[in-house]
Amino acid sequence: MAIRIGILGYGNLGRGIEAAIRQNPDMELAAFFTRRDPAAVKTATEGVPVYSADSAKDHKDEIDVLMLCGGSATDLPVQTPEYAKYFNVIDSFDTHAKIPEHFANVDKAAKESGHVAMISVGWDPGLFSLNRMMAGAILPDGKDYTFWGKGVSQGHSDAIRRIEGVKNGKQYTIPVESALEAVRSGSNPELTTRQKHTRECFVVAEEGADKAKIEAEIKNMPNYFADYDTTVHFISEEELARDHSGIPHGGFVIRSGKTGLNGENNHIIEYSLKLDSNPEFTSSVLVAYARAICRLAKEGQTGCKTVFDIAPAYLSPLSGEELRKSLL
Amino acid sequence: MAIRIGILGYGNLGRGIEAAIRQNPDMELAAFFTRRDPAAVKTATEGVPVYSADSAKDHKDEIDVLMLCGGSATDLPVQTPEYAKYFNVIDSFDTHAKIPEHFANVDKAAKESGHVAMISVGWDPGLFSLNRMMAGAILPDGKDYTFWGKGVSQGHSDAIRRIEGVKNGKQYTIPVESALEAVRSGSNPELTTRQKHTRECFVVAEEGADKAKIEAEIKNMPNYFADYDTTVHFISEEELARDHSGIPHGGFVIRSGKTGLNGENNHIIEYSLKLDSNPEFTSSVLVAYARAICRLAKEGQTGCKTVFDIAPAYLSPLSGEELRKSLL
Repeated sequence: MAIRIGILGYGNLGRGIEAAIRQNPDMELAAFFTRRDPAAVKTATEGVPVYSADSAKDHKDEIDVLMLCGGSATDLPVQTPEYAKYFNVIDSFDTHAKIPEHFANVDKAAKESGHVAMISVGWDPGLFSLNRMMAGAILPDGKDYTFWGKGVSQGHSDAIRRIEGVKNGKQYTIPVESALEAVRSGSNPELTTRQKHTRECFVVAEEGADKAKIEAEIKNMPNYFADYDTTVHFISEEELARDHSGIPHGGFVIRSGKTGLNGENNHIIEYSLKLDSNPEFTSSVLVAYARAICRLAKEGQTGCKTVFDIAPAYLSPLSGEELRKSLL
Repeated sequence: MAIRIGILGYGNLGRGIEAAIRQNPDMELAAFFTRRDPAAVKTATEGVPVYSADSAKDHKDEIDVLMLCGGSATDLPVQTPEYAKYFNVIDSFDTHAKIPEHFANVDKAAKESGHVAMISVGWDPGLFSLNRMMAGAILPDGKDYTFWGKGVSQGHSDAIRRIEGVKNGKQYTIPVESALEAVRSGSNPELTTRQKHTRECFVVAEEGADKAKIEAEIKNMPNYFADYDTTVHFISEEELARDHSGIPHGGFVIRSGKTGLNGENNHIIEYSLKLDSNPEFTSSVLVAYARAICRLAKEGQTGCKTVFDIAPAYLSPLSGEELRKSLL
């Protein structure tokens, strides 16, 4: 029987999950849940009901895993523990500093109700975390490096758009190639924030706005831009729509470490992603882990899990025998 | 209490494990076992006993995990099921086609005796398998590519050395850069054996040997060289020792896959290794998984495991709480 997936929240992530489920024949999209008026939500999948989020628990027996597609700032800290009372759930909570607190809340709710919940799934946190952790366990005498990009940072784009005189804008985070090469050489460089990434902004100014002032305001913005070499390009709304409407992202996790009785040999473990669509890739990761969560629940496990806790075989539709034969 | 490791076989892998254990404060090297005369084995670690392999079972209560460092052709098919009767064991069995048979034999022995056994640990099979599997589960509509090198192939070096007139030799497997780039571009190319790798040989000929004949024999050797563009360099024994005494290796696992309702977005997941010492890195992977095996055994699990079956957290000396706080 197919794994019945519910999607709560129909934004970029919800749409990505909707598409990803079609690539997995062992899964079935059972229902959408929305905080908007269900009648106003037009999905890409005919025949799948759209329910009010408030009524979700009435449908708990129709869903094997509920995918929570809200934001980390205010939605998920409330939603994940709440829905874990009724469903096996999975989220992409990405506020690193608040993960321990979120884990504790979700773990309590999931254990009390006998469900499996998984938090912070995606690529960072998620696959990048997994690679940092495994590479560190394999090469304990070493150093970790994470680079992000080239990709669109939603937070930085939002920060630009809040500036007076800015109509629209998009920001790309770009890893510095020479820093990547220094890390790959095994020289274990100490790198400052400025040495690791640059920031490139494409800004649509309002008519008559003071562009020099906008540029200065961007470049001097604390936390967001002041510590980076930042380039600002002013372009038209048409150019922005034509050339910058995608949501690409990616990055690199590199561990450089030594082995041998005298640390005489160096090794580089590198994991990288080059993504045309950040939300669609994140959705694909979520869907693979939803398969794992469903299986763990069937085994009778309960409580909160992260990528560290899931044996990789649970992600695959193939049996252990098939995996060993074809992929080991 | 430290995890007590036993090493059976003191070749490159055994030495690598001996060194790796020193980087892991939660582990302790408890004993070496050898099929040679124990008195003739000089290890790098004073105070650790060297026992005869035949007497290993007399020491079963002194060892938490026994690392089997024999070869895949004839040693491990016998050793792993045999020692799984008395110990939790781990091997690096790498004959891909015989993994299902080896798994079945080891699983039976480990289940009957109540031990945990792990097979085919290292980087390929091992970390590369894990990455192929996970990337395939995340991007089901895609294609896998594995490239090896630049690195020394022991099997190909041996094949060269068996040729008449060859005194010594070493072979490097080299991935073709343009093929790697084509894969990374997302074009999903079909690549022949010849298009993916080249082979470079450094050969020391015996005095008076017919070098042209040796070169032709290498280049036309079926399976090993005939399907590749192969370069042969004749050098002196001194040059071989000076420039080619290392055992570097590495490689790339790349998955290129599409997402979206119409497959409109492409994604590249790439995992790569650049290793100064193939056996020392393999040893480091084995040691991290030994930690996992010891923990699984303490939980009461039994039977044969592969990298697909182990939740990543088991590899790390850190607690779940520490992992979530510092690495997620």
